[in-house]
Amino acid sequence: MADLKLGLIGTGAIGRTHIERINNKLQGAKVVAVSDAFAEAGKRVAEKYGCKFFASGEELINDKDIDAVIVTTADAYHAQYVKAAIVAGKYVFCEKPLAPEASVCKEIVDMEMAGGKKLVQVGFMRRYDYGYRQLKKLISEKTYGEPLMLHCAHRNPTVPESYDTPMAVENSMIHEIDVLRWLLGEDYVAAEVVFPKKTRHAHKNLQDPQIMRLWTKSGVLIDVEAFVCAGYGYDIKCEVCCEDGILNLPEPSNAMIRTNASRVYPICKDWSDRFIQAYNDEFQEWINSVKAGKLEGPTAWDGYAGQITAAAASKARDTQTKTAVEIPPTPDFYK
Amino acid sequence: MADLKLGLIGTGAIGRTHIERINNKLQGAKVVAVSDAFAEAGKRVAEKYGCKFFASGEELINDKDIDAVIVTTADAYHAQYVKAAIVAGKYVFCEKPLAPEASVCKEIVDMEMAGGKKLVQVGFMRRYDYGYRQLKKLISEKTYGEPLMLHCAHRNPTVPESYDTPMAVENSMIHEIDVLRWLLGEDYVAAEVVFPKKTRHAHKNLQDPQIMRLWTKSGVLIDVEAFVCAGYGYDIKCEVCCEDGILNLPEPSNAMIRTNASRVYPICKDWSDRFIQAYNDEFQEWINSVKAGKLEGPTAWDGYAGQITAAAASKARDTQTKTAVEIPPTPDFYK
Amino acid sequence: MADLKLGLIGTGAIGRTHIERINNKLQGAKVVAVSDAFAEAGKRVAEKYGCKFFASGEELINDKDIDAVIVTTADAYHAQYVKAAIVAGKYVFCEKPLAPEASVCKEIVDMEMAGGKKLVQVGFMRRYDYGYRQLKKLISEKTYGEPLMLHCAHRNPTVPESYDTPMAVENSMIHEIDVLRWLLGEDYVAAEVVFPKKTRHAHKNLQDPQIMRLWTKSGVLIDVEAFVCAGYGYDIKCEVCCEDGILNLPEPSNAMIRTNASRVYPICKDWSDRFIQAYNDEFQEWINSVKAGKLEGPTAWDGYAGQITAAAASKARDTQTKTAVEIPPTPDFYK
Amino acid sequence: MADLKLGLIGTGAIGRTHIERINNKLQGAKVVAVSDAFAEAGKRVAEKYGCKFFASGEELINDKDIDAVIVTTADAYHAQYVKAAIVAGKYVFCEKPLAPEASVCKEIVDMEMAGGKKLVQVGFMRRYDYGYRQLKKLISEKTYGEPLMLHCAHRNPTVPESYDTPMAVENSMIHEIDVLRWLLGEDYVAAEVVFPKKTRHAHKNLQDPQIMRLWTKSGVLIDVEAFVCAGYGYDIKCEVCCEDGILNLPEPSNAMIRTNASRVYPICKDWSDRFIQAYNDEFQEWINSVKAGKLEGPTAWDGYAGQITAAAASKARDTQTKTAVEIPPTPDFYK
Repeated sequence: MADLKLGLIGTGAIGRTHIERINNKLQGAKVVAVSDAFAEAGKRVAEKYGCKFFASGEELINDKDIDAVIVTTADAYHAQYVKAAIVAGKYVFCEKPLAPEASVCKEIVDMEMAGGKKLVQVGFMRRYDYGYRQLKKLISEKTYGEPLMLHCAHRNPTVPESYDTPMAVENSMIHEIDVLRWLLGEDYVAAEVVFPKKTRHAHKNLQDPQIMRLWTKSGVLIDVEAFVCAGYGYDIKCEVCCEDGILNLPEPSNAMIRTNASRVYPICKDWSDRFIQAYNDEFQEWINSVKAGKLEGPTAWDGYAGQITAAAASKARDTQTKTAVEIPPTPDFYK
Repeated sequence: MADLKLGLIGTGAIGRTHIERINNKLQGAKVVAVSDAFAEAGKRVAEKYGCKFFASGEELINDKDIDAVIVTTADAYHAQYVKAAIVAGKYVFCEKPLAPEASVCKEIVDMEMAGGKKLVQVGFMRRYDYGYRQLKKLISEKTYGEPLMLHCAHRNPTVPESYDTPMAVENSMIHEIDVLRWLLGEDYVAAEVVFPKKTRHAHKNLQDPQIMRLWTKSGVLIDVEAFVCAGYGYDIKCEVCCEDGILNLPEPSNAMIRTNASRVYPICKDWSDRFIQAYNDEFQEWINSVKAGKLEGPTAWDGYAGQITAAAASKARDTQTKTAVEIPPTPDFYK
Repeated sequence: MADLKLGLIGTGAIGRTHIERINNKLQGAKVVAVSDAFAEAGKRVAEKYGCKFFASGEELINDKDIDAVIVTTADAYHAQYVKAAIVAGKYVFCEKPLAPEASVCKEIVDMEMAGGKKLVQVGFMRRYDYGYRQLKKLISEKTYGEPLMLHCAHRNPTVPESYDTPMAVENSMIHEIDVLRWLLGEDYVAAEVVFPKKTRHAHKNLQDPQIMRLWTKSGVLIDVEAFVCAGYGYDIKCEVCCEDGILNLPEPSNAMIRTNASRVYPICKDWSDRFIQAYNDEFQEWINSVKAGKLEGPTAWDGYAGQITAAAASKARDTQTKTAVEIPPTPDFYK
Repeated sequence: MADLKLGLIGTGAIGRTHIERINNKLQGAKVVAVSDAFAEAGKRVAEKYGCKFFASGEELINDKDIDAVIVTTADAYHAQYVKAAIVAGKYVFCEKPLAPEASVCKEIVDMEMAGGKKLVQVGFMRRYDYGYRQLKKLISEKTYGEPLMLHCAHRNPTVPESYDTPMAVENSMIHEIDVLRWLLGEDYVAAEVVFPKKTRHAHKNLQDPQIMRLWTKSGVLIDVEAFVCAGYGYDIKCEVCCEDGILNLPEPSNAMIRTNASRVYPICKDWSDRFIQAYNDEFQEWINSVKAGKLEGPTAWDGYAGQITAAAASKARDTQTKTAVEIPPTPDFYK
C-alpha cells in the first residue's frame, strides 16, 4: 500500500519534530506539504524536507494530493483547520488542545457527528505510553479490585517566563485530565485546585506548585501535583490505589549507575525524551488506523471532555472552590 | 549506675510488649512493678515477669521504690496517672494520646509547667525511626531548599470491627500529625478530611480510605492517605517535596527475592514489625535521658498540640469543611 | 519507496514470529514467499499469510521477485541458504548461529569478501536492546573509565528435555558472547566453564547452572552465569564494573504492584517477551538498511567470531580447562 | 546485675571506637582499663575515658577487677593476649584475625579445648548484620531450595598505600570467608583467585580488582569480587542463587532523593558507617552472652577455619592455581 501523503499546518518546533518522526523514523506515511502563517518560516521548513508549501492551511487541506492533515499551529488556530478538514472529509490529527474553549470543541464534535464519520484524533500521547498501558491493562483485568484513589505528579525542571499560573492546568495537567479519564473509563464530576507553599524558583506570575483534585462519577478521588519548577528533571508519577493492591506507573528503564556514593537511576530531563516512544507509537498507530479507515485514538469528544474539565479546574483555581465538572454523556457515535 | 526501677500501669498487649522490651532487650532499666484495673490480668503479668503487683496505679506511682512510670492503660485513663506522676515528681512515659481531649492535655501541660520540671514524655515513636530521622536531617541541612508539600500514606492490612471512621484520624494519622510537625518544625493552621471511594473491604461504620490535609503556618501543604483496609501490608510513606529535590522516607531494608516472575521486596505486615527498632530506640533513649535527668523526646506540649490538631481534623471530617487548627505558641518551657 | 519483498526459508515457530512481525507490525517490507523442507507445513504457512510457496530455498532465493532473504531453518541448514543468497547477490538475514561450525562460518566470510559486498546479517538481537545500547553509549563516552570486569547472568524458567549441557554455551550464552564482544569492542583470548552445584530441577543430561568466564585481549574478565532451570522467570543481567563507576543493564520497565506483603516488580517469563522490542528494532533497522543499501548490524564476521568463541568455551567445558580463544584480526572489509 | 568491667588492649582507632561504643552507646558493660604497647598513646586514651592504664596487657588481663578482655592490637599480637586470657579463665573478644597464621589459631583452639570452656569470640561482625541474618533465615527455612552459587562483592572507595595485593584476601575478603561459611553452614574445599584488568587507581603493589572463588563441600560455587579502589563508595553485595529463587542482601535503608536528573539512593562511604548497627549488635550480644556465661558468636574454631581458608586462597593467588582448602572436621566442642 502506498505511503499516506500528509499535510502539516504549523511548522513550529513541535510540528518539525513530527515531520522528522514521520519522514525519517516511522513507516507508511510522508509529510509532503506544509503551511504556516509565517510564510518565511514555513517555506524554510518546506525546503528542508522537500515539501510543497501552501500559502494557507485551507488550500493545503483541500489539495487533492493530500490524504490527511496534521495541525500543529498555535492553540488558538487549531479549530479552524480541524473544521476545514472535516468539511473536506479528511482525517486530521490535531495537537492538544482541540480548542482552548470547550464551546468550540463542541462545535467540532457537532460538525463531525453531522458528517457521520470519525475523522478527528487529538494528540493526547500519554495513552500510548507503555507504562500507562500497563496500568490500563491491570485495572481492566480487575485482579486488584476497584480503583479508589490516584496520586499523580507532573514535574518539569523549569518553564519559560511566559508560563503562568493557569498553564499548570491548561497545558500541563491537561495530560493527566485526559489520560486518567481514559485509564478509569469514567467522567469527572468535580475539580479543585489548591496552592501549597510557593517555590522560590517560580517567577511572580506563576504559582508553583499546585495540586489539582478530580472526583469521578463513581467517587474515585484523584490528586495531581503540578510542580513545573521542580528543577531536578521531567518526572511523571501515577499511583493507582485499588482495593486489593497499589499499582505504580513504571519508571523509565534506564541503566543504573553506582557512582559518587550513590546508586543513580537517571531521570529524563524533558518530555520529548520521556515520551519519545509514546509519540512514535501515537503517530504510527494513527497512520495505520488512517490507512485502515478506522481511527482508534483519542477523539474529538475526548478533546471536548478534556476542555470542559480544564475549564472547571481553572474556575476552581480562580475561585479556590470545589467546582462541578459537567461532561454530557458520551454520544454513541464516540463509544 | 544501677538499673532504673520502672512501674507500668496497664498490662494489656502494648504494655506487655514494653515489659518484654525493657526487661529482655534493652539495658539500664527493669519494670519491677505493674498495676491494672483488671486485677486478675495484672497479677498474671506480675507473676510472669517477677514484678510486684499494685492494686492501684496511684499506689504504684507513689511507692518509694519506683523511679519512673510507664502508662499503657486504655486511652481514657492516661491523664489521671500522668497527673499523679507529676504530683509525685516522677518521670512518666505515656503512650499516645496524652489524653483524648485537648483540654485535658492542657491541664497536664499547666500542671507540669507549674511544677517547673519536664517529667512527661509521650509515646510518639515515629520520631525515633531511622528513616524519619534521615528526612529530618536532610531538611535541617537545607541542601534541597524549603519543603513545599508532603505526600504521605498510612496503610494497614486490616483493622478490627471496633475501628470506625473517627479512628483514622485519632488513632492512625495522629502519628503523622506528630511526626510531620516535628519534621517541619512548625505548627499547623488548618485541616481537612475528604473521602475517596470506599473499599468493599471496609465495614459499614468505617469510611476507608480517607485523605487528610494539613496546612502549616508557612504554607506547606501535607496530604496523608489513611487506608487501613489496604490488605497488602503495613506500609508508611512520606515524600517531602522541597524546592531543590524530593526526599523519600526509605523503605525498610529487606532481602529482595527473585521468585515467581517477580523481584519481590517484602513489606511488613504490622506496625510492631515495621517500627520495632523505633520502639526500641524510643525506650532506650527515654531510659538514658531519665537517668541523665533531662528528657529529650516528645513532650506534653507535643501531646497537646497533637490533640488540638486531631480535634480540628475530626471536626473537618464531620463537617466536610476545611477547619482552623489553633495551636497556641509553644511556651519557652517546652522549647 | 515500495515495500521490500522478502522470502523466508524455514517456517517453524521463530520463522512464523518474524512473518507476523514484518507483515503486521513493522513497515517497509512484506514476506511474500516462504519455503520449508516440510512442504506441508510450509504450504500451510504460505496460505495463512498469502505468500507464494517455493519447493526449495534455492528457488526462492533465485526468484527475481524476491528482494532479500530471511533464513530461519534448523541451525544445520543456515549456511547453505546464506551461501546461495551470496551467490545470488541478495541481502540475507540469518538467525544465529550463522553455522554451528566455525569453519563453515569462515567459508561464508570468504565467499562474502570475495563477492566484495556485505550481504549477510546475523540475528544477534541483543545489540538492539535499549538497555545494552545504553551500556554501549555509557562505555563509549568513557565517563566512568575503562571496563575491568563484567558480571552477567542468563536465566530461563525452564528448558525442554532436549536441552543438554552443551546448549548452555551454544544456544544460550552465545548471546552474551556476541553482545559483550560488541559492548567492549574487543575480541576474547580465553574461555573457561565451571559447574556450580547442580539444581534438582535439571534433568540428567543437563548440568545446570554453569558459569562461563571469558577474558578479552586487554584483560577484561567476564563471568556469565547460565541458569536455565531457574524457575522464576527469564532474566538477563549485565553489570559492567568500570574504573569509576558500575553500570547495570536496566530491568525492563514494568508497573510495580504493592500486594501480598510485597513490592512486586514483574519479571518476564520468556525471551520473546523480554526482547520483543529488540526483535522489532532489529528487523526494522535491517529493512531500513537493506533499502538504504548499507547493512549496519552484526556481520558474518561477528557470526564467525561468535562460533570460534563458543567452540573454545565448549572445549573448555569438556576438558574443564581454561582454553585459548583464537579469533583472527578483523579484516578491514568488516570494520 | 552490675556492669561488666572490661579491659581493652590496643588503643588504636578501632579500639577507641569500641570504647566509645561500649561506654556511651551500649548497656551493661564499661571499659574500665586499657593497655597499649605505646604507653604514651595508651595513657592519653585512659585519661580521656577515665580508665586505669596498665603497662602490659598481661597485667591487665590478670587484674582481679577485670571481668573480660577485648583485644584490638595489631594483628600480630592478638594471639598472645588471647592465650593469656584463656590461661586466666577470662572471656576475650578478639578482633579478626584471631592470628595471621592458621597454626597459631590452632594453638589457641587446642588451649581453649584443653581448658574445657569456650572463652574466645572473634570479631566477625558481618554475622550480626541485619541483612545477612535475613539471608541466613531464608536459607534455613529452605523455601527457595538449596543454594547453588553465590555472587558477592566487596568494594571500598580507596585504600592506603600500605594496602597491597595479599590484603584483598587477608583483610577484606576474610569477612566473606567467614560470613559465607556461616551462611551456608558448611566448609570450603577449594579456593582460586584471578586478576581482572587492573584499575588505573591501584598503586603498583596492589592488584585491584581481584576475584576469589570458593567451593564448598556440597559443591556450592562462590565468587567474591574484591574491588578496593572502586572509588564510588563502600558497597557489599551478596546474591544467593537457590534452586527456587534468588536471594539478595538488602541495600542499606537510606532516604531516596530525586535530584539532578536522577533518583539517588545513597551508598555508604566507609565500613564503619555500613556496619555500625552490626558492630553495636555484635558487642551488645557479646556483653549479654558473657553475663549469661554462654558465648554465642564466632568461635576460635571459626577464626581458625577462616585463616586456613585465607591461607589457601593466598596460595591460590600466588600460584594462580585452584588450591585445596583443608579444614578439619569441626570438633564437638565447637558445635
